[in-house]
Amino acid sequence: MANVLIVGAGGVGQVVAHKCAQVEEVFENITLASRTKSKCDKIADMLPRKINTAEVDADNVSEMVALIEKVKPDMVINVALPYQDLHIMDACLETGVHYLDTANYEPPEEAKFEYSWQWAYQDKFEKAGLMALLGSGFDPGVTSVFTAYAKKHHFDRIKTLDILDCNAGDHGLPFATNFNPEINIREITANGRYWEEGKWVTTKPMEEKRVFEFPEGIGEKDLYLLYHEELESLSKHFPEIERARFWMTFGASYLKHLEVLQNVGMTSIEPIEFQGQEIVPIQFLKALLPDPASLGPLTKGKTCIGNIIKGVKGGEEKIYYVYNICDHQEAYKEVQSQAISYTTGVPAMIGAKMMMEGKWMKPGVWNMEQLDPDPFMDDLNKYGLPWQETWLDKPFV
Amino acid sequence: MANVLIVGAGGVGQVVAHKCAQVEEVFENITLASRTKSKCDKIADMLPRKINTAEVDADNVSEMVALIEKVKPDMVINVALPYQDLHIMDACLETGVHYLDTANYEPPEEAKFEYSWQWAYQDKFEKAGLMALLGSGFDPGVTSVFTAYAKKHHFDRIKTLDILDCNAGDHGLPFATNFNPEINIREITANGRYWEEGKWVTTKPMEEKRVFEFPEGIGEKDLYLLYHEELESLSKHFPEIERARFWMTFGASYLKHLEVLQNVGMTSIEPIEFQGQEIVPIQFLKALLPDPASLGPLTKGKTCIGNIIKGVKGGEEKIYYVYNICDHQEAYKEVQSQAISYTTGVPAMIGAKMMMEGKWMKPGVWNMEQLDPDPFMDDLNKYGLPWQETWLDKPFV
Repeated sequence: MANVLIVGAGGVGQVVAHKCAQVEEVFENITLASRTKSKCDKIADMLPRKINTAEVDADNVSEMVALIEKVKPDMVINVALPYQDLHIMDACLETGVHYLDTANYEPPEEAKFEYSWQWAYQDKFEKAGLMALLGSGFDPGVTSVFTAYAKKHHFDRIKTLDILDCNAGDHGLPFATNFNPEINIREITANGRYWEEGKWVTTKPMEEKRVFEFPEGIGEKDLYLLYHEELESLSKHFPEIERARFWMTFGASYLKHLEVLQNVGMTSIEPIEFQGQEIVPIQFLKALLPDPASLGPLTKGKTCIGNIIKGVKGGEEKIYYVYNICDHQEAYKEVQSQAISYTTGVPAMIGAKMMMEGKWMKPGVWNMEQLDPDPFMDDLNKYGLPWQETWLDKPFV
Repeated sequence: MANVLIVGAGGVGQVVAHKCAQVEEVFENITLASRTKSKCDKIADMLPRKINTAEVDADNVSEMVALIEKVKPDMVINVALPYQDLHIMDACLETGVHYLDTANYEPPEEAKFEYSWQWAYQDKFEKAGLMALLGSGFDPGVTSVFTAYAKKHHFDRIKTLDILDCNAGDHGLPFATNFNPEINIREITANGRYWEEGKWVTTKPMEEKRVFEFPEGIGEKDLYLLYHEELESLSKHFPEIERARFWMTFGASYLKHLEVLQNVGMTSIEPIEFQGQEIVPIQFLKALLPDPASLGPLTKGKTCIGNIIKGVKGGEEKIYYVYNICDHQEAYKEVQSQAISYTTGVPAMIGAKMMMEGKWMKPGVWNMEQLDPDPFMDDLNKYGLPWQETWLDKPFV
């Protein structure tokens, strides 16, 4: 039975703490730590059983080391900020504990999404006999496992992969962002990128748009091509893939608000002089917008995230669609957090469970699709993210 | 020959100074005063002949009195802020000089557009043998003269009046307001109001929309019903009018920007706490938006402001349309200010000219439609705002 240290007490940390607490047969001891201990205590108070809490600055390796030495966990579940991944990995190596995260490292000074920094730890973790599991959220994470599962059971060869991330939730407010609006806006205003014929193709922000009819009454939604980090590891680990793309839904009203806010300069990160102070417009905007955390109880509707995979089995071309549907209000009822955090936090718990049960335990640094998808797929059905599969008549073009 | 004191050195003040300077046979001596003398000096430097400049706080009656006593003008042309009308009228009464403005008094603490405060000065001005001419801009102003002219020459009785204010100018920027964005936004987000069957009817903001094909290639534009101050005086002075309405054009993109800015709270006048200061969102927005003055050289296209009047002549019902078309770039070439300021400033000069030439000189407080429209209509053609008239087949419904 395992002792785990969860670092990060945001929306995802709250879900991970809830889900680990539910699985007492695996996670016997749980400690939740973050920069602000009171946030950990608030989460601990919601849970059905007692967990420990602690304060830690995850950027400070020696503070992390001291905490790990005190808690003596079998592994660290890192759901803090992506900027902190490497510091926490260093602390794990120094103390000899396993590691898991849900999003790849980003250098704080530039928005650069790539695995290079973390893959460079492969030798160190292997030699130490420790495992680091990267990107165990939904996307990346479940979308990577979906791909591995499709390959294992349904295809001799995958030809194209399209990951479709649909949030059909409605908070009833004219405009609000689901998480930090600064990151949200940066994601949308960045160039898109996809993998084709062995190289990256760059698109302009929101240049590629498709319409897809999502299942279970969600209906037709507009999807836009974005870059997303699992494309890097999937195109590496499935070199046969001819084209891999990532799509996210955005409603017309959401895009209209973003366009206007950009037009008037409200999304700018360049400070302007105002009332004798330097004020960064996007930070002022953030202060005006609803706190993302306040949206939880308001949000209705569902998310639908999944993969459309075209491939060949026994010489025949087939199109496979595997997806999960998650209901915002049901998630909120269970863990007081809506589906965006729920769909990331549950796979983090399952990834940790795979490691602690020994099903996925293997020294080195690994992406999700490099491990056996079957036990993970079983646990998705068991722990709140049931998936469905179907065959499509026509490809996603 | 007259000596005039112009108060206010904004866009309109600049046009009035230009136009008075052009009419040397009437305006022999001109003084331009405002809170910031350097703004007056900058305007003076553009003019073809020498004018005087001065600094004055128009809110301070004794400062105004001292300036009037020094300049000894025959009249004050008030193109400062509407908040200052009463203070300047008081100073005129105290010093025995005539008065003219372009927009009715507004109490600074509430957006209340009505003539009551200024009409209450009727006796004082009459007894002093002084004239106060109210609202000598385009709308109010020319639209009031248009109505009086229609009644005098074309109708026994006016049945309905629709004032159509179209700005088909394009500054090429995604979003900017033509004048103080705070006032602009307040105008659009307020309830509409029109006169019908002897009483006021209130509409929701932007509730009433019409489409009209404007002449001279301007083409179809969307018009929205707003309240505008001339409706009050016109419905009083033409009690026969069954219905009087005011319409302004707004483009879809402009309205989209305003809607979004309202949704996110950027148009609010309620301060929020930010970086240890109280910050009023709409003032921060104003700091982000282009300075309205910078739009002058950028703006292309035309304005078209006029009246559609349905009435009866010799028992027959007819529909009359009288309007002016003003070109932004031509206005800018002539007075370094685009058509919005030009169409307000030229009628202010003509109103002053009517008074100084004795054509309109009459002790008391008067709205434009109470005076003989003919000499004013002649001068519109002569001084840059030529008008055209036509008969329409169908009413504006």
